[in-house]
Amino acid sequence: MSDTEFDLIRRYFTRQDLNRSDVITGIGDDAALLQVPAGMELVVCMDTLVDGVHFPTGTSAAAIGHKALAVNLSDLAAMGAEPAWLTLSITIPESGPRWLADFSQAFFKLADHYQVQLVGGDTTRGPLAVTVQAHGFVPNGLALRRQGAQAGDHIYVTGTLGDAGLALQLAENAGAELQHRLDYPEPRVAAGQALRGIASAAIDISDGLLADLGHLLASGQLGAALSLNDLPRSTAFQEAVQRCGTEARALFLDLPLSAGDDYELCFTVPEESLQQLEAAQAQFSCACTYIGRVEETRGIRCYTADGEIYAPATVGYQHFGVSQHG
Amino acid sequence: MSDTEFDLIRRYFTRQDLNRSDVITGIGDDAALLQVPAGMELVVCMDTLVDGVHFPTGTSAAAIGHKALAVNLSDLAAMGAEPAWLTLSITIPESGPRWLADFSQAFFKLADHYQVQLVGGDTTRGPLAVTVQAHGFVPNGLALRRQGAQAGDHIYVTGTLGDAGLALQLAENAGAELQHRLDYPEPRVAAGQALRGIASAAIDISDGLLADLGHLLASGQLGAALSLNDLPRSTAFQEAVQRCGTEARALFLDLPLSAGDDYELCFTVPEESLQQLEAAQAQFSCACTYIGRVEETRGIRCYTADGEIYAPATVGYQHFGVSQHG
Repeated sequence: MSDTEFDLIRRYFTRQDLNRSDVITGIGDDAALLQVPAGMELVVCMDTLVDGVHFPTGTSAAAIGHKALAVNLSDLAAMGAEPAWLTLSITIPESGPRWLADFSQAFFKLADHYQVQLVGGDTTRGPLAVTVQAHGFVPNGLALRRQGAQAGDHIYVTGTLGDAGLALQLAENAGAELQHRLDYPEPRVAAGQALRGIASAAIDISDGLLADLGHLLASGQLGAALSLNDLPRSTAFQEAVQRCGTEARALFLDLPLSAGDDYELCFTVPEESLQQLEAAQAQFSCACTYIGRVEETRGIRCYTADGEIYAPATVGYQHFGVSQHG
Repeated sequence: MSDTEFDLIRRYFTRQDLNRSDVITGIGDDAALLQVPAGMELVVCMDTLVDGVHFPTGTSAAAIGHKALAVNLSDLAAMGAEPAWLTLSITIPESGPRWLADFSQAFFKLADHYQVQLVGGDTTRGPLAVTVQAHGFVPNGLALRRQGAQAGDHIYVTGTLGDAGLALQLAENAGAELQHRLDYPEPRVAAGQALRGIASAAIDISDGLLADLGHLLASGQLGAALSLNDLPRSTAFQEAVQRCGTEARALFLDLPLSAGDDYELCFTVPEESLQQLEAAQAQFSCACTYIGRVEETRGIRCYTADGEIYAPATVGYQHFGVSQHG
């Protein structure tokens, strides 16, 4: 590529104003040089979004820029970590300046909001894909983990479930609110940090509640009872489902259980920490809803308001991903 | 994808035996949980290899697995860092078990050699591309940087130059030795660590000597005089060039100056540290050759044995990359 193109791209990705004091060298050397604060563990995650796999082809550059970062901040949130640094590898078919401007603007808007600094990366020509690695800190021993839940613990989720999944199903008929939930997920960073020392286990919901809660329970060979009526659904979700025909409506009712892409947190809290949870919720900047209890018996059982067991048609959304789910 | 495929991929990337004591949680949670040793700075780099851009389509899975890791370890080496942890994002058109077996075997062979542990990542279906992020440590304040060279400093390179570039040019006629240099670059990890406190500046040669030495000199607004005759060329390189016709031969003679993909280190040493350098070379496990001096006057001047200035036809190899070069 020409020097002009090279300079153009460089301009878009070196324009963040943020200069964290723990960044000794950011972009501009063979590697970044960073200082993890004393008493802190380093939390590291990496997620790749591929055109046509993780977002529909034609998704706006701004939505891709936001989402590529948000899904990683969501992983940090699920660990109770405070975000600090990013690296970005972006592969683009051509370096259209408008595309890059929109992408980087949305990316840095979210990065600045969480005071997280881009410290390195790589830009390559090729089929559209974005890999972000996020680094955060958590005080020694206080990370939220997938393992740690006990039978009897209360199960909660942040925000509302199924919005992003319904937006994908309805496509151009999704409406602005649901579409925004799909394109601009809000990582629950404040909630994750507030849950340190309170939640016994946590995970973020990227593959659907049943699948991800399943991961959380698996390590302890536990199960859960969920109350279908308690699953938090947004007004936009409920209204959109009401507008659908009977057949579609039945299908869409499973979305809060099975749809991915919401990036809410699911976490468990022991009985003795419920008061602490109530106090902590003030820092969440999102809703937090009780949805059920952890049980000894393996498997997740969903109960209707009548106390009947409900079997959803689909168990979980699974894209082609191993991810951190290792 | 099916659960079977999912499990298959997981199996390939969770089979590393290494369990570093500074890895609190590796693969298997929302993020990895890591402990940077006291007194150490964290060094982080990320490089993406795209099929047809950074390696010819048809390159073996083993070579891609090795190279994706080697280019990142080379960046750590250029900072004087000790490698510690890796994350890997791999996008593959289809999960052929043979391809994955070959890729992961070569990847882990190199990782095990440097005792560097895979702690997370992401696997996605799509056009072939591999992103590796490498993390290392360097004692506080001792990182090698691109900046720091002074006029009068001696300039050195590790290993030999132009081998990988010649292999690319000769394609199927490259011969085993040159092809191996292209496919299996050796990151100069030991040399980089041995140069702490000795080299005034360092960079790894991924875009060609002139281009990368140019980056090193740019921050100090310096120049250099290089002695063409002193550039280290391997026997395989010299023999292959001898076999070429006159026209090709003239062109190939520039490769040690301009060809990328060698992943040798280029570094500068002040006069007063030359004795230390001599002592340190025992730890290099590769050759180390004097090639010229840093000068006040900007620009890189190459001198022939007759003392004439030589102007190479091409200045540097540039793929479509911003990379850490910021």
